[in-house]
This record gives sequence, C-alpha cells and structure tokens, in this order.
Amino acid sequence: MKAGSRITSTAFARKICSAEDAAAMISHGDNVGMSGFTGAGYPKAVPAALADRIGASAAAGDPMRIGVWTGASTAPELDGALAAVDGIELRLPYQSDPVSRARINDGRMEYIDVHLSHVAQMVWRGSLGHLDVAVVEVAGITPDGALIPSSSVGNNKTWLDLADRVILEVNSWQSASLEGMHDIYYGTALPPHRVPIPIVAPGDRIGVPYLHCPAEKVIAVVQTDTPDRNTGFKAPDATSQRIAGHILDFLTAEVAIGHLPPDLLPLQSGVGNVPNAVLAGLQAGPFENLTAYTEVIQDGMLDLIDSGKLAVVSATAFSLSSDAVERFNTNACDYRGKIVLRPQEISNHPEVVRRLGVIAMNGMIEADIYGNVNSTHVMGSQIMNGIGGSGDFARNGYVSIFITPSVAKGGAISAIVPMVSHVDHTEHDVDVIVTEQGLADLRGLSPKQRAQKIIDNCAHPDFRPQLQDYLDRAMSSSYGRHTPHLMDQALSWHAGYVGAGTMRGAGATAG
Amino acid sequence: MKAGSRITSTAFARKICSAEDAAAMISHGDNVGMSGFTGAGYPKAVPAALADRIGASAAAGDPMRIGVWTGASTAPELDGALAAVDGIELRLPYQSDPVSRARINDGRMEYIDVHLSHVAQMVWRGSLGHLDVAVVEVAGITPDGALIPSSSVGNNKTWLDLADRVILEVNSWQSASLEGMHDIYYGTALPPHRVPIPIVAPGDRIGVPYLHCPAEKVIAVVQTDTPDRNTGFKAPDATSQRIAGHILDFLTAEVAIGHLPPDLLPLQSGVGNVPNAVLAGLQAGPFENLTAYTEVIQDGMLDLIDSGKLAVVSATAFSLSSDAVERFNTNACDYRGKIVLRPQEISNHPEVVRRLGVIAMNGMIEADIYGNVNSTHVMGSQIMNGIGGSGDFARNGYVSIFITPSVAKGGAISAIVPMVSHVDHTEHDVDVIVTEQGLADLRGLSPKQRAQKIIDNCAHPDFRPQLQDYLDRAMSSSYGRHTPHLMDQALSWHAGYVGAGTMRGAGATAG
Repeated sequence: MKAGSRITSTAFARKICSAEDAAAMISHGDNVGMSGFTGAGYPKAVPAALADRIGASAAAGDPMRIGVWTGASTAPELDGALAAVDGIELRLPYQSDPVSRARINDGRMEYIDVHLSHVAQMVWRGSLGHLDVAVVEVAGITPDGALIPSSSVGNNKTWLDLADRVILEVNSWQSASLEGMHDIYYGTALPPHRVPIPIVAPGDRIGVPYLHCPAEKVIAVVQTDTPDRNTGFKAPDATSQRIAGHILDFLTAEVAIGHLPPDLLPLQSGVGNVPNAVLAGLQAGPFENLTAYTEVIQDGMLDLIDSGKLAVVSATAFSLSSDAVERFNTNACDYRGKIVLRPQEISNHPEVVRRLGVIAMNGMIEADIYGNVNSTHVMGSQIMNGIGGSGDFARNGYVSIFITPSVAKGGAISAIVPMVSHVDHTEHDVDVIVTEQGLADLRGLSPKQRAQKIIDNCAHPDFRPQLQDYLDRAMSSSYGRHTPHLMDQALSWHAGYVGAGTMRGAGATAG
Repeated sequence: MKAGSRITSTAFARKICSAEDAAAMISHGDNVGMSGFTGAGYPKAVPAALADRIGASAAAGDPMRIGVWTGASTAPELDGALAAVDGIELRLPYQSDPVSRARINDGRMEYIDVHLSHVAQMVWRGSLGHLDVAVVEVAGITPDGALIPSSSVGNNKTWLDLADRVILEVNSWQSASLEGMHDIYYGTALPPHRVPIPIVAPGDRIGVPYLHCPAEKVIAVVQTDTPDRNTGFKAPDATSQRIAGHILDFLTAEVAIGHLPPDLLPLQSGVGNVPNAVLAGLQAGPFENLTAYTEVIQDGMLDLIDSGKLAVVSATAFSLSSDAVERFNTNACDYRGKIVLRPQEISNHPEVVRRLGVIAMNGMIEADIYGNVNSTHVMGSQIMNGIGGSGDFARNGYVSIFITPSVAKGGAISAIVPMVSHVDHTEHDVDVIVTEQGLADLRGLSPKQRAQKIIDNCAHPDFRPQLQDYLDRAMSSSYGRHTPHLMDQALSWHAGYVGAGTMRGAGATAG
C-alpha cells in the first residue's frame, strides 16, 4: 500500500508537511499530548524532529522545554530523544525509557506517576494545566475525515478533544486491517453528568471504531512508514515457569472449590517477561474459553488467541515482539471479533474492572512481610518505570496477584523485605503474592498471619531466617503488635544495600 | 409505641426469646455477622449475653471464641464486652473500641482491616470462610415478614442472605419513621453476572426499603428498647475551624475557576471532630443545594439539611450525638426524601463513587512529604481504628482531601513526617493535604514539588526546619532523586518517638 493512500480526506491531505515543519509548530512551554502506549502507536517522526530542533536551539543559547503527556511508555525516538536534549520539563503518566529514567533519577526532570485510568479525568478537570498540542499517530484517515486509530489508543481521544492544535502522523506501516478493531467510547463526561459505562463483558462494543477531530484544529499531517518498537520477550526461564506453575495451581484450586468459574474471569496481565510466562503457562493449562480485560496485548495473549484458548481480549494497546507483530499484520483479519482496543480510560476503568471481576496479575519490585507492594521505586527513591495500570486493576479487580522472582542482583537483593521502601499497593489491595518459591494467599489473614505465610511460602531460603528473625524480634518488642515493626530497623535491609551493596545480613544484629 | 407492636408477623413473633437463650444458639468457632456501623444499629442484647456466657464458660475451663464480622465500629456492649472476655478470635472489617484495640495491639486478637466496599464481595466469594450466624438489629418486622432496617444498614443484607442461622433484635427505641428511608439493592451478583448499578445521583432509589430473610432461617427474635451509642462531637476548636476555613477557601477557588460546579459535587466526610467541623464550616459557606454521597450521617450533615444547605444525603448509617438523634427521632418524617440509607457495598461502591465524582474528605494520622497517607497505624505498628471507607472514596473519587492537625501529643509528634510509618493511601490517591497551617494542592506536582509544598504549607513551624533539613540532605545524597529518601533516616522520627517520646530533633544530626 502506498503511504499516500492512507490519507483519503482532502481536508486533511492539504495539511501534509514534513516532520521538521510540524515540529516547528510546537513552542517552548507547550504541554504536548502524544500518542503511544507500551511502545505501540507513538509518533515516530515529529518527536525526533523536535528533539533535533531543541538540541540546535539549546546549542544556540535558547533552551526549549515542553511537557510530555502520553498514554504510557513510548520508545527511544520519543522519550529517549527528547530527554537526551533536556527537552522535557515534566513527563507523565508512565515511562520506561533508560535515558529518561536516568534524567529523572538525577533529579533533572520532573515526572508524575499516575494511575492510567485517572489521566483523562485529571486533564478534563484541568488539574494538570492546559493542553496546547496533540501529536497523535493514526493508521489512516477516511474520506470523510474519520481517524483510523493505530496500534494503541491510550489517551488519544482526550488529546484530540482538548488540544488547541493537532499534529497527526499517518503511519502506513501499521496494518490497514486495524480499521474496525477499535471501540472509541464518546460517552464519558465530567461529573455530575456521568452515566453508567455499559460494558458487561470484555468483548462488548459501546463506541465507534474511529477517532474524531475537526480538520480545522489539525495544523500538520506527517506521513511515516515506520515500525513500532516491538521489543521482544525472553523465552520463559525456569524461575518464570515456576511462578507460572504456582499461579496455575492456585487458579485450578479456586475453580475446584467453586470460587472461580471454570473459564475463570477476565484476565489482566502486566507487561514483561514474567507475566508473559504466566500467559504461556495458560497455554498448557486446563482452562478454555478464556477472556481478557487488560491494558496490553502481548505475545502470550496472541498465542492464546491462536490456540483457541482465549475467546476475546479487550485492551488499549499492543506490545508485541517483531515476530508476533508480523503474525498479527499478516493475519489481522482473523483477529477481528476477538480483539477490542479501547481508550485507556475505559480499558482500565474502575467501574468496569470491578463489574467484570478481573483477575489482576502484575509484576512488582518488592513486597513486605505484611503484603504491601512496591511496583515503582528501587531503594525507595529511584523510579524504575511507574505504577501504570497495576493499581487500576489491583484495587478494583476480583483477585489481585503480584509476582516477582524472590531475589535480584545475583542474590544481593531480597524481593521480600521487612518493610517496602515505597508503597504502591497497600496491604488492603494485595490478595496473593507469588515468587518462584511459592504462593501466599493472603485473603482473610491478619497481618501477623500474612507475615508468617509470606516468609514461609515466598521468601528465598537464603533470606528466610533473616526475615523470621526480624518478625520474631518485632513480635516481642514492637511499639504495637498488630503489625509488628521496629522503626529503627524496618528499612535496614535497604540501607544495607545502599551502603554495602547487599541485603544479606542487614538488620540481623542491630537493635 | 409498645415494643411488641414492632413485630407484626406471626411467623417471626413465635421465635421471640430472651437474649440469653439466643446467645446460647451461637457456638464456639462460629463466624458471626453482626449489624452495626459507627455505633448505630448494632445488636444491644445478644452480644452482651454472649459475652456473659463466654466469661462463665472460660471460668469453667471451657474457652469459647468466635469470629466477629460487622459493618464497621459498634459499641462497648458488643466489641468491648466480647473482647473483654477474650471471646473474639478474629475481628473485621473495622473497629474503634478501646478494649478491643488494646487486645489487638497486645497481639492477642487477630484483626483484618478491610476496605468497607470490599467486604460483601469477599464474603460472597468465600474467601473469609463460612458465615454461620447473623445477629442483626432491625427497627421492626412487617405483617408479611419484611424487615425494617435500623439506624445503619452496613453488611446486613449480606449477613441475612448468607448466614445459616439468623438472630434478630427488634429495637423499639429506633424511630418507627425509619421505615421507607432505606434503599436495599438486591441487584448485586458475583462476576460474571454483574450489571451496572443504576445510580446517577445521590438520592436515586434503586432497591426496596426492606431487608428480606426467610422466617425458616430465623432461630431467635429478641426484643430491645435501647439507644444507640450516640457519641457526641466536640464543638469545633480553633484548629478545626482553621482546617475548615482552608477547605472552604479551596472549594471556593475551585468553583471560581470552573473546576467544580457552584453546588460542588457529592460530599463524603469521614467521621470525627475535624470532619464534623468542616461540615459546620459549610453552614457558613457560600454553597447551596449541596448533596452528599457518604458513609455516615453525622451531626454536621443533619445541621446542613436543617438549614436547607444540603438537599439530599446518601449513606449507610447514622452517627449522631444524643441531641441530634433526639432531633432526628422527633422530626424523622421531615427527613424523608432527603436521606437514603444503603448497604455499605453500595454507599462506598467504587463504580458509584467514581461516577458521581465524590469530593472525599477524610482524617488521617500522618502524611509524608511526598503525599503518602497513614490512616491507621501509630508508629507503624499499633492500629488505631482501621481504613474504613477512606480508601473507597479517596481512590475512586474526584478530589481526595486528607486532614489532620499538624501536631499531636502536645507537639511531640508531627503529623507531617519524612516517610509515613504505614501507607493506607499512596501518593497516587492523595490530591490535597490540609492542616491548620494551610492546604497543599498536590495535583499535577512531581514528588519533589509536592515535598516542598507540603513542608511550606502544612507542617507545623516547629518541625518545618527539621523537615527541610531532611529533604535537602535527601536531595543531595539519596540513592535516587525522583523521590529523595535516606533509607537509614526515613523512619528516624518514629524511632525517635518510640525511644525518646518525641519527634523533635529526630534524625536532624544523623547521617
């Protein structure tokens, strides 16, 4: 397909210009809403051109910085390029780029880590400031000017609705068969004008397959023919397979006692190698006719569709390896009817997540013995990526599962600690913790009962005695004994790692 | 009204017996679902009789313990009496009784602190175990056996639906005019059978005014004529009035810039003297035609109805002073049409809280400089009451406000600390922090920006330099500088208080 054929509206076609010309329409201090979610559907040309411009401008003594709002993570040519030239004043709501991360953790770039379901509401109510420009990738523009969404939806509806000026990138690399796969809900509102969101099953369509934007607001249309980031997944290693095995055993047992239906409930899976391994485990599992109400369609989800195990998946974005994306693009028509891509406000909406009873499975950095989970901060201070949608699903879902290998950094770090150094999911929102060592079902347990179960089932054997020692000492001398803790030692494992490069032996002789 | 006239169903009347006989029908090891929410509508006679029986049994060398599940807090004659005889094996989902609290914090009683909107779902899915007995206070029984709910609804529908055996207390002290004020929704289900909850405004009625329970399940009906706990509120002191003033200024400014409508959005207010003072502040404020979608109707809410400021309030319970309850009982008919009492699953439901866009105002124990909030634990280990519904409203509401005086214990404790000792509400769920010193609007701010604003606006002047010193040192030497923290000093203020009885000077010279 020729690139030009993707823009069949004359009103939009006359806005076609170069990425450089489009980038020149963005000003210092602008807040810019960009498309992009987990490396899919982000603009490929304008951010890079803007980064070049900012770099040149800074070299000429005229620094320029913008606010960058997206769906979630993007790619080196957006986050990486703009961060490298110090072009980002404030970034939200999620990022995973190494250059950007380094700059944030050096204290040179502001970053706000937001529940992904909350972003649209925050922007609509005005509490993040004014949105000046939208830069949104689409897969095409129809003759009557409807926008065919790309491989992610994210916050694009909100950006197009609210931005003063809109720059579109039309990417002919995206499969033309994406058309019709999206469900853009135009029924949201600010309170007191909200009504129920009428989704009662993951595959329900409640909107339209196109994004709308008046041609008058569009200041530039840039043509691209560039692949998404398409990061590959590692083949599941032994640790991931053991984690997946524990989760399958748990789900099987829940079905056996009637706590879950035989076809489970809609699955949500975080992005990453371990969650992907869990999906691979479901391939071999006993469950049929599965559904997913999730953020992202990764390789494991596509495999489950291919094998007939997964009947339908709702998400806001793809996050596929190069191999999987080729498979998807070749057979996109076959996936029609089995995939629905929605705005992230809807894919992660608390109302829908609660109603459907989602089984939430998300990775984490560390958990403490009382079941509090840290998803975002290394040693309490250094951001890894962000909370993403994990809180949307963990809080309002039916069962909330958090997974991690029990140790990191070659065994220097225990993922089970006396007290987490940062809390993203409180004890109230964490039902199940899983490491390769085992699974702890925390439902119906008091803090002390949770602590013993997590130590026994989830901690690495090398750290188990050290955790037990902390718990025992806290039980005997804590200020209160509902959640026994020693304030002068609760974070000593982290202090030990920061100081001596290991959690081994930390806190054991203190006190 | 004679007590007997409240039981007009013959099928139920023939179950009438003494509290002692009813208590004898509860067995060691039973899980017992009791009515009661913030000291309203709890059973007055059977728990006390049960406590007597347990005490006698223990004295005879035959200890007896039960699981006690409620709506929320009850009163000394329930929680206090049963805890005093060591009769509670496990308590959930919220309590505020001093005897019970002491036992929990001595490590001699298990307590699970649960989001109040989650309890029904947890019990229905079976993850708390089997419910053996329900002990539920009602205001009357109609000729055809419908139960007129009492001054709280709480989890009563769930208890009556799921318990094997039901004991009813019919309390003729409760106003007969309560009849018709409740809205019991019988449309909930477990997934995948859930449908939208059709509330679009706080006053919407979607259910029936009665609770249902087959007479066959009822093993005892006990007659009482006993007042609710009816704890009084303190008159607003200067600190509370200053906090209320800051919140009124904030709401006024939000209306002025168009971020809130002139009649605001449905209010939720936690229980306590400070939240009650905020309600008193609204009496004098510029807002008319207010609504509330909240947990509890306390004195301030009743005053706002009386003055015509508050058009309608939805809640699950009353929590009135003796004066206010007399006013309510005398004029209950006048409140008809302005008050709706719902099951706590609905009053706190994430779907409805999000849709209505609730303005959530809750007290707290402490906040840290990054905006994480501790609502439950003193010095990280000693439970105060529980999270209650604060998380239901803070996470899914429209604006989430947390309030506290800036110091406690005569100035020995700062309510603003470097790191909270327990997290109930993460930085992602906290929009605004208010003390008598001022208000910090954290929306749209990065962690470092939040820290400076909280120190400047909310901390007590006595602690401000000490907090600034921590932040400055963390900014220069933290492991990461997204959320600067010093792992060996983050909890030093709490360690200082535990060790030396004051946070003053803690951590300032460490490091």
